[in-house]
Amino acid sequence: MFKVRTGQTNRPQQSTDYSIGGRIWVQKDGELYLGWGRVILLEKIEELGSISAAARAMKLGYRNAWLWIEAMNRLAPSPLIEKRVGGQRGGQARVTEEGRKAIARYKEIRRLFQEFIKGIS
Amino acid sequence: MFKVRTGQTNRPQQSTDYSIGGRIWVQKDGELYLGWGRVILLEKIEELGSISAAARAMKLGYRNAWLWIEAMNRLAPSPLIEKRVGGQRGGQARVTEEGRKAIARYKEIRRLFQEFIKGIS
Repeated sequence: MFKVRTGQTNRPQQSTDYSIGGRIWVQKDGELYLGWGRVILLEKIEELGSISAAARAMKLGYRNAWLWIEAMNRLAPSPLIEKRVGGQRGGQARVTEEGRKAIARYKEIRRLFQEFIKGIS
Repeated sequence: MFKVRTGQTNRPQQSTDYSIGGRIWVQKDGELYLGWGRVILLEKIEELGSISAAARAMKLGYRNAWLWIEAMNRLAPSPLIEKRVGGQRGGQARVTEEGRKAIARYKEIRRLFQEFIKGIS
């Protein structure tokens, strides 16, 4: 619908690459619960087993990572991330079953959204 | 998919209103061309015949309104807004035929997007 070429007008010939962009998220009572950045953070924690390593890997400030996790855990039916404290390997974190479900649901929503955008472009 | 009630878990009974939110826009070469705010601005200009009155009506700073119009006119195949200068009624502005087409196209995209979100919620 938005693929037009201004070469058809009396303007200088050039390609005009209009495209549709968008964002999609899950909210609870108007507060952001799951978005693309948060889901990447969950996946990185699952991969690396640590919040600080995950934040570093996605160039996210450690404080922001903590705030995102605090919000997700608070808004979820049950926590998405469990922090393991103490012991020789203190500072570790893991994604719970609820967290894995949240990742899968959000990615499905995002896939459908990308299909939708492709369909109307 | 996201309508769940935590009353089914062992947490205190409360309704958990998860919903899907999103934004959609048209961009050109990665630069924002048309979004919901910009289209409201176009409609207000059509209604009120003046950029300053339109900006005031939507509580948008005058400078921002000008920047949005500058960007839309630059990115469009032909300008969406024409400014009438001079004369007794200087400072007037009108939406062009191209502008009316842009409003209609964006609103159709937005309608489809809202239907999509409703469909997956």
